[in-house]
Amino acid sequence: MLAQSLTTLDYIAVAVFAITGALTASRKELDLIGFLWLAIVTGIGGGTFRDLLLQQPVFWIKEPTYIIVATVAAVVVYFTAHIPQSRYKWILWLDAIGLAFVTIVGADKAITAGASPVIAVVMGMLTASLGGIIRDILGHEPSILLKREIYISAALVGAIVYVATLSIGAPQILGALLGAAATFALRAGAITRGWSLPTYRPRPGRDFR
Amino acid sequence: MLAQSLTTLDYIAVAVFAITGALTASRKELDLIGFLWLAIVTGIGGGTFRDLLLQQPVFWIKEPTYIIVATVAAVVVYFTAHIPQSRYKWILWLDAIGLAFVTIVGADKAITAGASPVIAVVMGMLTASLGGIIRDILGHEPSILLKREIYISAALVGAIVYVATLSIGAPQILGALLGAAATFALRAGAITRGWSLPTYRPRPGRDFR
Amino acid sequence: MLAQSLTTLDYIAVAVFAITGALTASRKELDLIGFLWLAIVTGIGGGTFRDLLLQQPVFWIKEPTYIIVATVAAVVVYFTAHIPQSRYKWILWLDAIGLAFVTIVGADKAITAGASPVIAVVMGMLTASLGGIIRDILGHEPSILLKREIYISAALVGAIVYVATLSIGAPQILGALLGAAATFALRAGAITRGWSLPTYRPRPGRDFR
Repeated sequence: MLAQSLTTLDYIAVAVFAITGALTASRKELDLIGFLWLAIVTGIGGGTFRDLLLQQPVFWIKEPTYIIVATVAAVVVYFTAHIPQSRYKWILWLDAIGLAFVTIVGADKAITAGASPVIAVVMGMLTASLGGIIRDILGHEPSILLKREIYISAALVGAIVYVATLSIGAPQILGALLGAAATFALRAGAITRGWSLPTYRPRPGRDFR
Repeated sequence: MLAQSLTTLDYIAVAVFAITGALTASRKELDLIGFLWLAIVTGIGGGTFRDLLLQQPVFWIKEPTYIIVATVAAVVVYFTAHIPQSRYKWILWLDAIGLAFVTIVGADKAITAGASPVIAVVMGMLTASLGGIIRDILGHEPSILLKREIYISAALVGAIVYVATLSIGAPQILGALLGAAATFALRAGAITRGWSLPTYRPRPGRDFR
Repeated sequence: MLAQSLTTLDYIAVAVFAITGALTASRKELDLIGFLWLAIVTGIGGGTFRDLLLQQPVFWIKEPTYIIVATVAAVVVYFTAHIPQSRYKWILWLDAIGLAFVTIVGADKAITAGASPVIAVVMGMLTASLGGIIRDILGHEPSILLKREIYISAALVGAIVYVATLSIGAPQILGALLGAAATFALRAGAITRGWSLPTYRPRPGRDFR
């Protein structure tokens, strides 16, 4: 039952990341195929790297439904992207949902593949952030990575919460809920209140390069 | 015999993509090793991702001839790139040939690996466009993806033609010819006549972000 | 014993590349998690691609110590990056050490996986340069690849020296030392004396594109 829930999370994550990819395409005024391409690559990018790294079969190869989900997302966005007042806000919020889900699925797939807790946390963090980073590189948008708000940290905390909850023997569904909630809450705080970690600051009065 | 033809297509595709990589290196005035690196990465990039995704042995690891082909292409371009009037036109046309061939090989490898028709089409489209996209990212050129001309769409149509021809039971060689011809014709129309799909346009009179 | 030495080289390479990633993060004034992310991705990036291409288990998945090494490097740099006069120089020199080690480990892993000498040389060159290239793309720094100094060439020569030494039957440790020394010496010459290969130059008096 839980494996099924995680599959559902995976579908939702692919859909929301695909929508953010298509919205990026709309900001760049691409054609329908550009929408499709960015939606597919953003939707499946993080999970594809996750499966390659864990040497598992790539999740969308055997199951074309993921591609169809991303395709539908691209087409819907192509015809509706003029409706929302700010597409950028939609990108931010859908990305936050996707981030929360991909973090849990990434950490969980790593544990299932027999990886240690440290690796599970890293896989959750890496695969959650990769989709957005690929989207930003391909769409020539400023990278999430270089922004000063909480983003990767939210995935890191969610992955730690999930792995820690499992390791004390709590039910997996509880860990998934707590982990996803932690990631989403931190990211929501960053979006609405500009939460950020202290950034590295060079000492004043010196010439740094 | 057909497997052999597809291998030949693969060699030609590696060669022409390697030439476009080396021509990009010449536009950036790199040294010979820069030519070599960009030629190899552009030549084998798309096919490498294809094989990783399909969990097949990476095509150039066991067969060094591909690397030698790309190396020869880099060296030849290094000494002859001053001859053509417009290197950019050569990049465009060779890229169109490579696109047509890589599309067919990508779709075919996916079918051979047991993937569904939808996945075969996606693999043809993805792997055909990846080589050029990697080249553009590494060479700091404006990405194909963000241009408004037909490019990825040409690969998409070619892959659909190939997969559809096979699924109605027609001979594979016919499908390969029709698919490659469709991709090349669409791309040629884009190069010579500026063919493009309608792009997404925000409605006027509103402030969009 | 030598396998052990190569593992040690791998740890050192991960550490120094992680430090260069973290130093790049400090130049971009990221937060601690940004340091961590760039340190991990730069530290393990090249080796990860190497293992994926050779279809070996990815080296850091089963051995979390690599991630811990990169994490420690990120934290140490976060608190000490204000000390050196020029962080950019530290990046250059540590990168040169990492380049030398990764070249040998990459070529050696390819040979162990049964690849031919040509492929071993290419794997040494590719994986040595990938870490720095990924770091530069993610950190929005000008790519090593487009600089005119010797960099990839140093890895190429080191890989050739290593593979050639092995193929004449010399002890592996000698090949590793000679190869790493060749790479480091060439790169050091590029850093201190601006060594470069002749770059491609368009003929004057013509309008090239």
